Amino acid sequence: MWINGRTKDTISALDRGLLYGDGAFETILLKQHRPVLLLPHLQRLQKTCLRLQIDCPLPLLRQELEAFLAVEPVPAENAILKIIVTRGEGGRGYRPAGTLACQRILQLHPFPETRHDHAREGITVQLCQHPVSSNYRLAGFKHLNRLDQVLASMELREEVTEGLMFDENDLVIEGTRSNLFMVLANTVCTPLLNKSGVAGILRDALLAAFQHEGVRHHIRSISRQELFQASEIFICNSLIGIWPVTGLITESEMIRFDIGPHTRHAQQLLQAIMAT
Amino acid sequence: MWINGRTKDTISALDRGLLYGDGAFETILLKQHRPVLLLPHLQRLQKTCLRLQIDCPLPLLRQELEAFLAVEPVPAENAILKIIVTRGEGGRGYRPAGTLACQRILQLHPFPETRHDHAREGITVQLCQHPVSSNYRLAGFKHLNRLDQVLASMELREEVTEGLMFDENDLVIEGTRSNLFMVLANTVCTPLLNKSGVAGILRDALLAAFQHEGVRHHIRSISRQELFQASEIFICNSLIGIWPVTGLITESEMIRFDIGPHTRHAQQLLQAIMAT
Repeated sequence: MWINGRTKDTISALDRGLLYGDGAFETILLKQHRPVLLLPHLQRLQKTCLRLQIDCPLPLLRQELEAFLAVEPVPAENAILKIIVTRGEGGRGYRPAGTLACQRILQLHPFPETRHDHAREGITVQLCQHPVSSNYRLAGFKHLNRLDQVLASMELREEVTEGLMFDENDLVIEGTRSNLFMVLANTVCTPLLNKSGVAGILRDALLAAFQHEGVRHHIRSISRQELFQASEIFICNSLIGIWPVTGLITESEMIRFDIGPHTRHAQQLLQAIMAT
Repeated sequence: MWINGRTKDTISALDRGLLYGDGAFETILLKQHRPVLLLPHLQRLQKTCLRLQIDCPLPLLRQELEAFLAVEPVPAENAILKIIVTRGEGGRGYRPAGTLACQRILQLHPFPETRHDHAREGITVQLCQHPVSSNYRLAGFKHLNRLDQVLASMELREEVTEGLMFDENDLVIEGTRSNLFMVLANTVCTPLLNKSGVAGILRDALLAAFQHEGVRHHIRSISRQELFQASEIFICNSLIGIWPVTGLITESEMIRFDIGPHTRHAQQLLQAIMAT
């Protein structure tokens, strides 16, 4: 692990990242030692820092990142690169004292092993009780305030792979660690993230690909009932790619979904996206 | 600073407190080296840990706290004791792997100096643009996801002492670092915190004192308009006590408030509370 360009694995217990979750992060797939979709990840990081008014020198971060990946032994062919940027240390209570020295943390993690080929076979998901927090000024950004995802993921039963989260108006928003797509009336729909949720890099890339390929798609509010009526459901994130949902556990029943043509087409589009 | 009973000022950069804001905290006034309202603070900490399913051994924390206060030089007659409890390190992504070793951080901070006697003279507040996030499952708790307070406090102009925050339905909720009381129709009102906000220790203590003393009071939703119509406003927290609001800066004007009898009475009740 590196912090600010040096090998280090601890931070100050006065760092605002710890005190308040005052920072941003990115989780990036390393495929054959190459960071996938690095540019959009760095762009989102920059956007989040801008929103939080954290002064993060992106050229320096890129330099550190290149040196880090050149030097550090990557655990396996596929691995996870995590970038955390905190506002650093300082200020009296919540209010930071002027511009602080942001902390740039680079971590390598092994890619989680699984016996299943989720992309091919599909997964079972459950519905989480814990709602996503609503705040239009933080919606979409990947900041360090992630208690919602932690608490929702703690609900997951042994046999399920992901949990779906709703906002307080019972609109479905996202998975605990993924974005959500579904097919409604032959249109690929994904929840509007203007009040809550994280706008994933792969979600963005897929939407752009749908646009380019002329796939009917719609970003909009989606209710719990509509979710149940979908003809196809899939989830995505930068690490896992696209996983079809074949089972959805509700309070009373298990709803089954086929892996349909839209999902398989999205997976094909993903191949091209990942190769860029 | 102590961590887990030993002098230490850094934590692992893999600690979930840093990664996700996965933890709880308390900020306690040390008055003449004595922690004020320690028991309710520890009770809230325990409640928050319970809500987050963080296994924090309270007897051990109390032991460490006593030893810490006996040994560490307190900066001045009045100082700030901060307790942070994180879930610790471990788990694949958001989901913690079973029960982790929680981290118990104890910090001493100097009490911020001010030239003003805010408790006597009152303060000017402004209205923050940044809204408080809404989530009924996290409302009231003092967890480490505090970006809202950070961003709202960054809006504060030079001449104001506190900012008031609203939820997305334009209900007034709290100050960036305080709870809010106001007098409406001769009744002391404080915002309902069932969807957002932090339920302060002093807020609780004041409400109990109002109950005991037969002061008419009401916990309820309060709109922006009602705030403007209040006959008295005051804020409170464990560190500052009670500060009357004498000026409220809106977009178009400065609304003036008198320091009324309810505020002065609350300050008297506070004397008794602080002495317990």
